[in-house]
Amino acid sequence: MTNSEKADRPSVVRETDDEARHLALTLLREARAVALATSEPDEGGFPFVSRVLLGIDCDGRPTLLVSGLSAHTKALSVDPRCSLLAGEAGKGDPLAHPRLTLQCLAAPVERDSADHQRIRARFLRRHPKARLYADFPDFRFFRLDPLRASLNGGFGRAYLLEGNDFLLTNAAVWPLAEIEADAISHMNTDHADAIAAYALRYLKSDAAGWELVGIDVAGIDLALGDQLRRIRFVEPVTDVASLRTAFKYLKFGGA
Amino acid sequence: MTNSEKADRPSVVRETDDEARHLALTLLREARAVALATSEPDEGGFPFVSRVLLGIDCDGRPTLLVSGLSAHTKALSVDPRCSLLAGEAGKGDPLAHPRLTLQCLAAPVERDSADHQRIRARFLRRHPKARLYADFPDFRFFRLDPLRASLNGGFGRAYLLEGNDFLLTNAAVWPLAEIEADAISHMNTDHADAIAAYALRYLKSDAAGWELVGIDVAGIDLALGDQLRRIRFVEPVTDVASLRTAFKYLKFGGA
Repeated sequence: MTNSEKADRPSVVRETDDEARHLALTLLREARAVALATSEPDEGGFPFVSRVLLGIDCDGRPTLLVSGLSAHTKALSVDPRCSLLAGEAGKGDPLAHPRLTLQCLAAPVERDSADHQRIRARFLRRHPKARLYADFPDFRFFRLDPLRASLNGGFGRAYLLEGNDFLLTNAAVWPLAEIEADAISHMNTDHADAIAAYALRYLKSDAAGWELVGIDVAGIDLALGDQLRRIRFVEPVTDVASLRTAFKYLKFGGA
Repeated sequence: MTNSEKADRPSVVRETDDEARHLALTLLREARAVALATSEPDEGGFPFVSRVLLGIDCDGRPTLLVSGLSAHTKALSVDPRCSLLAGEAGKGDPLAHPRLTLQCLAAPVERDSADHQRIRARFLRRHPKARLYADFPDFRFFRLDPLRASLNGGFGRAYLLEGNDFLLTNAAVWPLAEIEADAISHMNTDHADAIAAYALRYLKSDAAGWELVGIDVAGIDLALGDQLRRIRFVEPVTDVASLRTAFKYLKFGGA
């Protein structure tokens, strides 16, 4: 059954608009950890849910770093079908807070491949403590291909999304990935004032210490302590040369 | 594969002791919401993970209140196999906090049955806001039969548990369930001082407003705002007549 057929059934599902898509992407991007549901093959497909740290590749695909000794890794190695739950229960009624269910196919990332190097670097910028074990021989990365999602924005506010809604696909995605690490290092070292200005303007935070941990064609990811926050560029970057302009527009609002 | 066979495999799994069992039970009992993994039958068993409120029946079985319009309810109605993740990610490293994966079989609770009345009452004491929709025609309760669990107490501290570890089975379970509502009402109305004393002694909380929301043979559940806490009796109650003594021992430590 496709998402549009599902949406045709009498239900509380609303028409997916840009606001819903933005909320879904933000919930995923700002999640440090998610609940991961896998299907245990030696139990005939019994659902198993556990907590894992979440990374995001430069094309928007979720990534996981997991131990080969764990039940979810054993499951994923045989049956790649999985589902993530992003969005914290927070204060007050746990069901009043928005959350996202994303269904994916997981593929192992070959160690020492270019993918591995990039995914590892992006992951460890979000999760610096994972440096302690990321290179242990039993640990490995998976990259997840999003198939479909369901966003629950609170009671009676349900939306269905396509896997493509989570992917960044323009021509600058991979060229930008090549220079990402250097650009982040440059920004954090030489333009801490700009990072602080973004945090103040977009995150309403005047706290010291926000660091840039990710740049992709659609925006940037900032981290401070337990917080992981997303800021979108005014327009996606379509070539590497325009990254500088995108940052400038963020700071000055494109005036 | 049984849990003991799983435990025999070379792994980081430790021998399950009473401390691990106690932690597992506490994580489950104190969870307001859990991540629920189900298997979507119309997608060939694709894992689906969502957030649901958690109740506990008087015999320790988890209970859920879910809408028939939701994907998890549709899944559970066809394939009863499911898994719960209890324990919040909390502050700091999300993987440093203990969490419990519990695999269960879900059975729908027939509306207007005695089970329904008891499960509904216990659930609504934990989740008073669910009164707003609990009786909507599309909502229903499920009771979950625990099969096995895996406790992750932080890095390198994994334990396997049996479904029976979560069940209360002595002769007083059902007789106590009969008088539970009256006993709770009596305690909250006439012995608020005792409730406050339990909170101070066992939860180290001097906040006003703790309320008793559950009594079973093994202990009591207290709630205040977003907090749901468990206090165990010194010894399980084996007949209804000794409930008063169990409460007294809680207050005075059985001296």
